[in-house]
Amino acid sequence: MLRTHTCGELRIKHVNEVVTLSGWVQGVRDKGSLVWIDLRDRYGITQITIETENASPEVIEMARSLGREFVISVTGKVVERYSKSDKLDTGDIEINPSGLILLNAAITPPFTIEDETDGGDELRMKYRYLDLRRNPVRKNLELRHRLAIETRNFLDKLNFLEVETPVLIKSTPEGARDFVVPSRMNQGEFYALPQSPQTFKQLLMVGGFDRYYQIVKCFRDEDLRADRQPEFTQIDCEMAFVEQEDILNTFEALVRHLFKSVKSVDIPTLSRMTYADAMKYYGNDKPDIRFEMKLTELNDLVKNKGFKVFDDAQLVVGICAKGAAEYTRKQLDELTDFVKRPQIGATGLVYARYNADGTIKSSVDKFYNEAELAKWAAAMNAQPGDLILILAGDENKTRKAMSELRLEMGNRLGLRDKNKFACHWVVDFPLLEWSEETARWHAMHHPFTSPKPEDIELLEVNPGAVRANAYDMVINGVEVGGGSIRIFNKELQAKMFGLLGFSKEEAQDQFGFLMNAFEFGAPPHGGIAFGFDRLCSLFGGAEVIRDFIAFPKNNSGRDMMIDSPSVIAQAQLNELGIGLKK
Amino acid sequence: MLRTHTCGELRIKHVNEVVTLSGWVQGVRDKGSLVWIDLRDRYGITQITIETENASPEVIEMARSLGREFVISVTGKVVERYSKSDKLDTGDIEINPSGLILLNAAITPPFTIEDETDGGDELRMKYRYLDLRRNPVRKNLELRHRLAIETRNFLDKLNFLEVETPVLIKSTPEGARDFVVPSRMNQGEFYALPQSPQTFKQLLMVGGFDRYYQIVKCFRDEDLRADRQPEFTQIDCEMAFVEQEDILNTFEALVRHLFKSVKSVDIPTLSRMTYADAMKYYGNDKPDIRFEMKLTELNDLVKNKGFKVFDDAQLVVGICAKGAAEYTRKQLDELTDFVKRPQIGATGLVYARYNADGTIKSSVDKFYNEAELAKWAAAMNAQPGDLILILAGDENKTRKAMSELRLEMGNRLGLRDKNKFACHWVVDFPLLEWSEETARWHAMHHPFTSPKPEDIELLEVNPGAVRANAYDMVINGVEVGGGSIRIFNKELQAKMFGLLGFSKEEAQDQFGFLMNAFEFGAPPHGGIAFGFDRLCSLFGGAEVIRDFIAFPKNNSGRDMMIDSPSVIAQAQLNELGIGLKK
Repeated sequence: MLRTHTCGELRIKHVNEVVTLSGWVQGVRDKGSLVWIDLRDRYGITQITIETENASPEVIEMARSLGREFVISVTGKVVERYSKSDKLDTGDIEINPSGLILLNAAITPPFTIEDETDGGDELRMKYRYLDLRRNPVRKNLELRHRLAIETRNFLDKLNFLEVETPVLIKSTPEGARDFVVPSRMNQGEFYALPQSPQTFKQLLMVGGFDRYYQIVKCFRDEDLRADRQPEFTQIDCEMAFVEQEDILNTFEALVRHLFKSVKSVDIPTLSRMTYADAMKYYGNDKPDIRFEMKLTELNDLVKNKGFKVFDDAQLVVGICAKGAAEYTRKQLDELTDFVKRPQIGATGLVYARYNADGTIKSSVDKFYNEAELAKWAAAMNAQPGDLILILAGDENKTRKAMSELRLEMGNRLGLRDKNKFACHWVVDFPLLEWSEETARWHAMHHPFTSPKPEDIELLEVNPGAVRANAYDMVINGVEVGGGSIRIFNKELQAKMFGLLGFSKEEAQDQFGFLMNAFEFGAPPHGGIAFGFDRLCSLFGGAEVIRDFIAFPKNNSGRDMMIDSPSVIAQAQLNELGIGLKK
Repeated sequence: MLRTHTCGELRIKHVNEVVTLSGWVQGVRDKGSLVWIDLRDRYGITQITIETENASPEVIEMARSLGREFVISVTGKVVERYSKSDKLDTGDIEINPSGLILLNAAITPPFTIEDETDGGDELRMKYRYLDLRRNPVRKNLELRHRLAIETRNFLDKLNFLEVETPVLIKSTPEGARDFVVPSRMNQGEFYALPQSPQTFKQLLMVGGFDRYYQIVKCFRDEDLRADRQPEFTQIDCEMAFVEQEDILNTFEALVRHLFKSVKSVDIPTLSRMTYADAMKYYGNDKPDIRFEMKLTELNDLVKNKGFKVFDDAQLVVGICAKGAAEYTRKQLDELTDFVKRPQIGATGLVYARYNADGTIKSSVDKFYNEAELAKWAAAMNAQPGDLILILAGDENKTRKAMSELRLEMGNRLGLRDKNKFACHWVVDFPLLEWSEETARWHAMHHPFTSPKPEDIELLEVNPGAVRANAYDMVINGVEVGGGSIRIFNKELQAKMFGLLGFSKEEAQDQFGFLMNAFEFGAPPHGGIAFGFDRLCSLFGGAEVIRDFIAFPKNNSGRDMMIDSPSVIAQAQLNELGIGLKK
């Protein structure tokens, strides 16, 4: 090894040992009689101190020639510092070098390698290998490593087997768009990259594997938003001979274990909320329950008082922002602007201040007297000092808008602390949702999700009312995982494909292998998949998953560092039997 | 859970407990007064015994209606067996069921779900989910899981970080053929699937990650041989601030740990052999050293005695097969046929029997008298009872042929026991090898491999003599891993690309990101990659890696189960901006 210790390792007990450290020059200070080098590696920083009176001329000359990010190896005695530093773990000691070897020089980096850098996003993406040297970026990936290994060991102890499923699979039109891979040996045919190992993990259950997991790359060729990557990672799991309750208990235990082992945080038993309640009380199927501020329907209280906006609305819904009665006009205008943004789409915002003196003043005083406003306040459990915010309009749109406003108020009131974690399950999702665009039913989860047995008879008469044995794990308003109990019966699976608009031939062509497998003794089974990038970012208290991926792509799906995708040679295209459209 | 215990769990201590088991019907025997069901899951088999005199009519009727591979759930009391079975871990007990629920029926499987099945390869590939139910196949994948998790925990303890590198990368013409992925968002451009994360792991070292590993899928679009898969898995590792010795010690420790923890086998410290010695003594850069039988060059002893075959040969080389002097004419003819097979390509085989009575008889007695033959025997340390086998011809071809003959003799003499493991390193590989076909130098390992510092000056004058800091780990004659110390200097890397026939522009275009990275303070680094599928098959005492992959592809790169690759819709092609060549 080109070192005896790391730059984060030496303590007072090492004093008088002769050691060799290797690393990067974080900085050099030259005071004439003393030259200091801060030597950095992944594990920390150690101060190298050269007393020019005592050191060899070679060492002094070398030290003075060093620039930032030069790679050096230093040999010398560990000595106790005169003035100790409590900013560094190694702050009690320093090294007096007897030898100093330049391993590699460095040109000036395009941005500073500091916790707070001056580099913009694009530059840091292009020089990702330099960005990775920064503590915050490296720590994110260390966290990711730790979460992965804790997940594996936890599941291993429960007899889960990690099984690698194939990456070169078959394209299916259901769901998102596939990335495809032309086959040279089977010209005119294509593999697809998996959007998830769904059918394979189900086949593992048919194959008697009983408990499966995999931390696995998945792929979706979607137009990218800021928080999406064309390749992403899932913790993918499946169990046989289980009911929904077993899955919830098993994976709730996993997540609580991760919080405990990685962050030393105790998470209480997860509460459960039906999809119906989530939509009713939070306007959202992944509510952030770090704070209350539930939605209250006000239709009964507000209609027929002459206020046309409310009278015409399908839904009038309010939230009570605790302690926000003294919001200024400016702040209220900001909230109005917020809800009127196209992404949110409300036409306006009604508010009522429940003042500390017990009076209530609203933006619709013309239509509602104080007694009526007092009824609103009572319905919402508002207290003096609270601010009531109300939206009205189309039911679904208004709930969604109110959910956004609720989260915004949570942010403004400091109720969404990134270091607090509220984890819960949302259960009883609808099996199907109607798409106006395609004028057919779509699977809310995926086509393999089982309806609740007691709802199966509704499949023919009222598909929209059928609830699924499907569940999402939600942490701080983020869906980190979702899954379902699966259909394991060929006829029911065929009926499901029929409801989703597949012809018998299409269903057989695309998923025949799975439906056939169900005929050979398929056990009841179910599973879950966690978005691992998202889970990492959540554990890291961050919002951008890109920061938790070693080599991410930008929003055009481009790897800026290696400059990919790129053109390939005509000979390659010829071998594959494909051509480019002009 | 649809069970309280697994089918492998119940023992005498559970007697009188009421339990529920779920699993597959391995078989039903009906003796009238007694009906037995062997119930199977991943963990074992438990006998269910129904006394028709005492059992409920429903249970009896259900039991008699069951077929092989039906999925059932059984509830009943654990009782001690009258006649215990020591073939099953659960052989001391059986279940008297009070309830028996059919979870799923099964049609007759296309082959028997037994350790020895009647299903051919193709059928088992098509119904892989049924093949996975067979103990030998499942055990292979359990072994794979165990090796993976032991690898991860071992490396984690040494501060290695598992970092996921991207799957959608950039196509480069050096090396094997890439699988490519058309980019929809960047039409006319393609991603490539990685043949290895080589450049990314080097960039992680430049990024200060210090110790990296990943168990990762890699891809090569090559014409497939029986033991190759288009997607395969590597244990990929890299370390910074190391020399070759450090890599060898670290990963030797990993493999010894795997043998110890997974197979309870103690592997001694690995011996090391230079590439030159491997070729000289075994004719092979991955010698099987479970047995000796080294190659002995005989040129000095055999030339100029009138035997034209030897006189004209560049190399005359022999092996001594211990105790094989009594090989029959038929056996010797078989060996001659073996070496004359086109894959081996020798023109003939010369032998000499060192008889137990001390006489020596050869197939070339016409040219060599017994005194001369005695010199051959002495050169090879042959003893009475041994058989000397000799090949002659072109040096490289003859060495290779003799290596094959040596392995064949090892097989015939029972010297290649699959339960014995001989692990060693082959080191000091040549950096470059000359290709007659392309009339240029090729990197023997890959273009990032560092020459030995003391050989760098030979690069310009005698490239073929330059040795690399490259090493392979060989177990039982199989190369399970290989790696090198890398170039970490831009100029040397550029010179290397020049030697390999890259123009400056090509090198910059394809690997500029790596060479540029070397300018920003790259540390000395090196690494290794293990072929994980191969390692698993070796640990499993098998030769076909396909048996250690859950869902393998056949030799045409086709997944027989899901029938992939397959045609995709014209709309998909249009979106990607590609068309099929007629």
